[in-house]
Amino acid sequence: MWGGRFAEPTDALVERFTASVDFDQRLALYDIQGSIAHAEMLAAGGVLSGGELRKIRSGLSRIQRDVEAGRFRWDPALEDVHMNIEARLTEIAGEAGKKLHTGRSRNDQVATDVRLFLRERIDGIDALLTDLMAALADRAEQHTETVMPGFTHLQPAQPVTFGHHLMAWFEMASRDRDRLRDCRRRLNLSPLGSAALAGTTFPIDRAMTATSLGFDGPTNNSLDAVSDRDFLIEFVSVASMAMMHLSRWCEEMVLWMSQQFGFIHLPDAYCTGSSIMPQKKNPDVPEIVRGKAARVMGHLSGLLVLMKGQPLAYNRDNQEDKEALFDSADTLADCLAVITEIVRAMEPDAEAMRGAAEEGFGTATDLADYLVVRGVPFRDAHEIVGQAVAHAIERGLTLSQLALDTYRGLSPQIDEDVYEVLTLEGSISARDHVGGTAPSAVRAAIRAARERIDATE
Amino acid sequence: MWGGRFAEPTDALVERFTASVDFDQRLALYDIQGSIAHAEMLAAGGVLSGGELRKIRSGLSRIQRDVEAGRFRWDPALEDVHMNIEARLTEIAGEAGKKLHTGRSRNDQVATDVRLFLRERIDGIDALLTDLMAALADRAEQHTETVMPGFTHLQPAQPVTFGHHLMAWFEMASRDRDRLRDCRRRLNLSPLGSAALAGTTFPIDRAMTATSLGFDGPTNNSLDAVSDRDFLIEFVSVASMAMMHLSRWCEEMVLWMSQQFGFIHLPDAYCTGSSIMPQKKNPDVPEIVRGKAARVMGHLSGLLVLMKGQPLAYNRDNQEDKEALFDSADTLADCLAVITEIVRAMEPDAEAMRGAAEEGFGTATDLADYLVVRGVPFRDAHEIVGQAVAHAIERGLTLSQLALDTYRGLSPQIDEDVYEVLTLEGSISARDHVGGTAPSAVRAAIRAARERIDATE
Amino acid sequence: MWGGRFAEPTDALVERFTASVDFDQRLALYDIQGSIAHAEMLAAGGVLSGGELRKIRSGLSRIQRDVEAGRFRWDPALEDVHMNIEARLTEIAGEAGKKLHTGRSRNDQVATDVRLFLRERIDGIDALLTDLMAALADRAEQHTETVMPGFTHLQPAQPVTFGHHLMAWFEMASRDRDRLRDCRRRLNLSPLGSAALAGTTFPIDRAMTATSLGFDGPTNNSLDAVSDRDFLIEFVSVASMAMMHLSRWCEEMVLWMSQQFGFIHLPDAYCTGSSIMPQKKNPDVPEIVRGKAARVMGHLSGLLVLMKGQPLAYNRDNQEDKEALFDSADTLADCLAVITEIVRAMEPDAEAMRGAAEEGFGTATDLADYLVVRGVPFRDAHEIVGQAVAHAIERGLTLSQLALDTYRGLSPQIDEDVYEVLTLEGSISARDHVGGTAPSAVRAAIRAARERIDATE
Amino acid sequence: MWGGRFAEPTDALVERFTASVDFDQRLALYDIQGSIAHAEMLAAGGVLSGGELRKIRSGLSRIQRDVEAGRFRWDPALEDVHMNIEARLTEIAGEAGKKLHTGRSRNDQVATDVRLFLRERIDGIDALLTDLMAALADRAEQHTETVMPGFTHLQPAQPVTFGHHLMAWFEMASRDRDRLRDCRRRLNLSPLGSAALAGTTFPIDRAMTATSLGFDGPTNNSLDAVSDRDFLIEFVSVASMAMMHLSRWCEEMVLWMSQQFGFIHLPDAYCTGSSIMPQKKNPDVPEIVRGKAARVMGHLSGLLVLMKGQPLAYNRDNQEDKEALFDSADTLADCLAVITEIVRAMEPDAEAMRGAAEEGFGTATDLADYLVVRGVPFRDAHEIVGQAVAHAIERGLTLSQLALDTYRGLSPQIDEDVYEVLTLEGSISARDHVGGTAPSAVRAAIRAARERIDATE
Repeated sequence: MWGGRFAEPTDALVERFTASVDFDQRLALYDIQGSIAHAEMLAAGGVLSGGELRKIRSGLSRIQRDVEAGRFRWDPALEDVHMNIEARLTEIAGEAGKKLHTGRSRNDQVATDVRLFLRERIDGIDALLTDLMAALADRAEQHTETVMPGFTHLQPAQPVTFGHHLMAWFEMASRDRDRLRDCRRRLNLSPLGSAALAGTTFPIDRAMTATSLGFDGPTNNSLDAVSDRDFLIEFVSVASMAMMHLSRWCEEMVLWMSQQFGFIHLPDAYCTGSSIMPQKKNPDVPEIVRGKAARVMGHLSGLLVLMKGQPLAYNRDNQEDKEALFDSADTLADCLAVITEIVRAMEPDAEAMRGAAEEGFGTATDLADYLVVRGVPFRDAHEIVGQAVAHAIERGLTLSQLALDTYRGLSPQIDEDVYEVLTLEGSISARDHVGGTAPSAVRAAIRAARERIDATE
Repeated sequence: MWGGRFAEPTDALVERFTASVDFDQRLALYDIQGSIAHAEMLAAGGVLSGGELRKIRSGLSRIQRDVEAGRFRWDPALEDVHMNIEARLTEIAGEAGKKLHTGRSRNDQVATDVRLFLRERIDGIDALLTDLMAALADRAEQHTETVMPGFTHLQPAQPVTFGHHLMAWFEMASRDRDRLRDCRRRLNLSPLGSAALAGTTFPIDRAMTATSLGFDGPTNNSLDAVSDRDFLIEFVSVASMAMMHLSRWCEEMVLWMSQQFGFIHLPDAYCTGSSIMPQKKNPDVPEIVRGKAARVMGHLSGLLVLMKGQPLAYNRDNQEDKEALFDSADTLADCLAVITEIVRAMEPDAEAMRGAAEEGFGTATDLADYLVVRGVPFRDAHEIVGQAVAHAIERGLTLSQLALDTYRGLSPQIDEDVYEVLTLEGSISARDHVGGTAPSAVRAAIRAARERIDATE
Repeated sequence: MWGGRFAEPTDALVERFTASVDFDQRLALYDIQGSIAHAEMLAAGGVLSGGELRKIRSGLSRIQRDVEAGRFRWDPALEDVHMNIEARLTEIAGEAGKKLHTGRSRNDQVATDVRLFLRERIDGIDALLTDLMAALADRAEQHTETVMPGFTHLQPAQPVTFGHHLMAWFEMASRDRDRLRDCRRRLNLSPLGSAALAGTTFPIDRAMTATSLGFDGPTNNSLDAVSDRDFLIEFVSVASMAMMHLSRWCEEMVLWMSQQFGFIHLPDAYCTGSSIMPQKKNPDVPEIVRGKAARVMGHLSGLLVLMKGQPLAYNRDNQEDKEALFDSADTLADCLAVITEIVRAMEPDAEAMRGAAEEGFGTATDLADYLVVRGVPFRDAHEIVGQAVAHAIERGLTLSQLALDTYRGLSPQIDEDVYEVLTLEGSISARDHVGGTAPSAVRAAIRAARERIDATE
Repeated sequence: MWGGRFAEPTDALVERFTASVDFDQRLALYDIQGSIAHAEMLAAGGVLSGGELRKIRSGLSRIQRDVEAGRFRWDPALEDVHMNIEARLTEIAGEAGKKLHTGRSRNDQVATDVRLFLRERIDGIDALLTDLMAALADRAEQHTETVMPGFTHLQPAQPVTFGHHLMAWFEMASRDRDRLRDCRRRLNLSPLGSAALAGTTFPIDRAMTATSLGFDGPTNNSLDAVSDRDFLIEFVSVASMAMMHLSRWCEEMVLWMSQQFGFIHLPDAYCTGSSIMPQKKNPDVPEIVRGKAARVMGHLSGLLVLMKGQPLAYNRDNQEDKEALFDSADTLADCLAVITEIVRAMEPDAEAMRGAAEEGFGTATDLADYLVVRGVPFRDAHEIVGQAVAHAIERGLTLSQLALDTYRGLSPQIDEDVYEVLTLEGSISARDHVGGTAPSAVRAAIRAARERIDATE
């Protein structure tokens, strides 16, 4: 494959060890797309004749059909996707095929292929995130008045609504989409024309290939362009963050589906059973998503390490970037799709949620606030309410069940109207400001969110 | 500290284990800044009187002076920076101090503090990156004609200029700054008013505190706002990428300073010696920077893991986010500063670089291109040149030293003028397109780069 | 510090950037210990006179007292702990001090210091793990009959005993201790005498220094010995696994302390409260331990990366190994100590546990087994019991509450005696084999465990 | 598949998302092996009849042949390897097949399968490490007198021999094998009989299945046994360390094959070329190995995260452990095999190595030692030699070329015999102690190493 400089064939183990076509064949259609753009540019510059261009185009079309039909014969001896396609093209198109590699190298070619691949995956993931955001807003809208305990430290803290909770998830997904779009913008430059590392002596038109491949322009430096993998690390970093969010939600779903919480139910179609325990109905999907978050984080860690020690420009270490990237993109897309289905399918148990909110002294802060309004400094109010809670625990009562006399014993500022602030509805509706959990605030948040869902930038 | 609900004091080991004031005291000035904004807002809403506000302001000013002078007494029994400051304020300002915590919680307070801290660090790092970019462009401008071998696989590939190589570094730094600015934009929202997790019952004005703290607006969801640590993970992710770049440059500097390469010299002031070997002059700075890249990557890994399993909203696990963040920001800033000094101080050895470029058959591609221009398909040209290289190696010659007859024996298309394309200058100046290594192309790149250096967005 | 070869002083920023004495002073006592062993060996070989040895010994003793008293003056201009101590020794002991560095280098010196440090820390952590194992066995013994639901997928699966559950924790801790001991065995070799990288020309006796420092012998290869950091990565890897275990237990403790589970209570002394919510009693300790697990995992990741790209022998990157090691050792030790206290202090709520076990159809497998014993193939039995569970859910009953007629409708093999296998006690006591949850099996496991606790290898 | 408790079929996306048979089919032969052992034990205990056992055995044999021949039909709707095999067995063996799952669960089954798989892989990797160690000792023996520069900070430090350097690699491989054997010992316990999590009600004999599967005994606690993945994390941790070592060697090989170093040559069969640059001969194999080290480290990071947040006992997150394990084992085995070939094939260029050793003042330490022997304290000797080096650099000379007068000007203790200690051979042969680089010391080290190669523990 490398011609005259080599006196002996490659060792069989080395050939197997270095071949990448098993996994980089996934780039085939992007490779062909890039080759067509390159050939058209060469023809426009007079490097290829019109006839040669036609032969190349038609040969590549035929290869594309074979690839799509799964009948292309990949040969590990030809090392990678690029040489496999080029060799086949030369079989089909003869001399013209041999001319295609003029003014380019596998180094700029693979950088271009991976960017094209990733750009398409990003667009798909953007759509999936948008679906998920829409699903969250829809479900939130149904539950702006469904009361549940809000937790800190997994202890009941203050009542919130299920809609408010879902909109917290929405915010995370929204940031993920925002980061993804920044990543796309940064990657959308064309390395083609950087050739091996220094550019090429042929009269190329980098702006032309950039435009025909939908890039915003050519990259600025050839050495950088063939060795830069920032765009894929940035993507896997964005993906890790998104998976971290999904993992957090799944942690909650697993908790909520436990017998002890019972806050949501999932239809049987979304659960699996046990081979031994006939009663089991398990939240396998959220558990696997949690597990897959670890996987993507592992990829991120691996990719940073991969690049860390490399001098310029291309080194073969980089071959190892592809599987981690492919797997991260697939994993994120799969998880988003399945979680969106679950978001749409899950059935909150409003009664169980409300019951849990009623226990746990979730309106204790409201009582403290009540005292503050009556002139007690917050720190003193905190102390007084702490004592009330201690009383209540001792006697097995809730705050609403403590007698007014008891309250008055703790603080003369407390009146009959205290019982209003101790209700769940009172507590929730009082938090009526931007970002708060009051139904009206959440409804306003959903309205604003809907505009962001539709935004294309 | 938590008043009436607790019947016994905290265990000594637990107190020591849970206290964070040793490291979060670093947030003190941001905490005070946030408290002043909060107090002013409470006063504007009538929750604090004018007199109370004055007392709080003056108390916090006094605390600020004490912190700045290093004479504030931090008490681990008061757990964290927030309670330390509040307790002291109450000593100074009495009842007014006790009122400051009205309508907020440590959960939104710490989220605000960390954002303020990080925003300031980001601005400092942005300036350091800008300095570095300027240093690189300056040095590149001095070396647009300094020829060196461009490497792939650490083998000489094609000649490039040192200026072109430095501009590859510039591109990396420029992307780092771009990512940092995206991160800043995303973090610049105010969590204040989210209180513990659900918002507050007090008549707060979140837009007012956001504005007075320089935020672009309030966050959208209280549950999310108190548990969101995306902004700091995104920062450490940006920092990891930047450190990865610095590590790659340092790998090159260490190589270039080796006796075998000898491409650059560093003044004695930037090197260190050996306790045992009197002749040693070691590139310690780039080595330590490589090592510190691993450190920041470790932090990134740790932070993602930290958040991965947490249900909403705040959990104490989050306390562990600070040291990794502080250390990442410090490390990146230190490394940028020291590398910028080294970029300015390093002395390329043009002769050694040129000598290395002359060996290694770096113009072999030019010879293949020469054949292509004369009608030989690229793949055939590659084969012919491969044979020429094999000949040359056998006889210990360079390509320029091979006789014309030898060339003609390999391909009749080769003429006397081939020797021009085999020169380093011929090779370099022929790569005269956007991103190419030709001196004119690099000068154009530097001009464009200078505009980006000054850009503020 | 590096004498004649350098023409200019070190740049101030570089000096600050490269100095390690801020953190490696922690090695001071080990450094002194190693220096004394080295000096005694030099004296035994005639390189130092008896008088010189005495001066060195007494000088180092004085330095040791100063270090221990906190009055040693560390100077960053002297870079590290080794040069600081040597410089001070030379002030005290004059010419003799200057001779101490004969036949060694900072490269073998620091490798020795870190091994001595880590060996001592390992011994301390071994003792902490042993305490924890003892605490677990003690608590398990109190609860060999305390029934709780065993979970898979956080769904009730089959009843187990709390004692059995604690012994699962015991197994993890026991493996951790086993791994730690393997690590200690591998690290316990002396690098002293490897000098800079190639050994030394002086007549040294490596076996003598190895013995006097308690090592099992000298390392085998000088190049390897000065660049090897396996022992510390192995330690951090062992620590990561141990922290992963603690994190899992803490995940369980946080769940168990939730209002929904209520399986355990922690005394107030082990919990903390909220600055805003007066009712809160939070499981901060287990949460922080979870967070700290992420921290140690980040260190492991960082350390592997640190070493991955380094050619032999010593490179300055290695300086970055210390803080991660120190912090990992401290973190693991602190977490073990605090978790052991909590294991001893936590109060299981046997009633809540039993209540939870009674729900959730935990004896469904017992019913299937019952059918198998009566000749029904397991897969068919599984199907039948699945239907019984579906019936029970529909009617809001437990399996014990289903009527015999209903059972007979599903399978004629079911008789009156089925109700015995449906009891919690029946289920548990039937699992009476090695590793099973039956009280007698758990008691046997505790007896065997007690022997392992006391084992010293 | 889960019978009567489920009212609706699994959603198609969920079925695809949760199925693991695509990758866990790799466990098929271990699964069959475990099933046979389980069936024999059930028969010995009277739970299966002799006839049933025969049917199960013969059915499993048939399945094994189909799997080995690649004609077994794996069905994702049957989720995993276990259910696929069991379902097929029931087709073949009827009622007997349905009885096989008596007294076990997929939870203990998969834990057993993975241990059996990994034990076999460990034995293969142990053999590969042993080959590599033998190859290193063989090559080292050929080069006990081949002088090369020893480097620290990639600067020439002191001369060493190539044989000594290879024995440094040997030490790393030897530690890796040692760690691997510890890992094997710890994993070699049988989880079978732990069933779902609590053990089983059937009269099982765990010792019998343990023995027939070659385990050292049964695990101690059923809850732990089904959720423990320590053994595979420990393996990937050992593999990460081994890959880190290989990566370090590859870093050296890439350097040594550079035009600038030229220390080793690799036959063409072990290199690859460039698609554009006809002269290139690239060290792709060591570069890919470096890249693959990052991959395994990523897996380690992912696996620790995977387990970190899981409460007992089995959670579906664990399904994600397999691909990372399989890939780590494959990667390590492939890399060991290919690096062993390269160790055997690489051709050191003794002349180039010696030339490099002669430059760089590598014997400066010997000169300092010479002075020490003549009574100059080491620190003063270091200073004097530093000045000699500065002189030599200024005049472009080596230390051997400096005139005696110059030396005497620096120190009157220097005599004519100084030139002997300045030779490479003098320097090397003087380091003649355990672990030193002197030929006799290295030969002794090789002899000792050969005994370790053959050790089976």
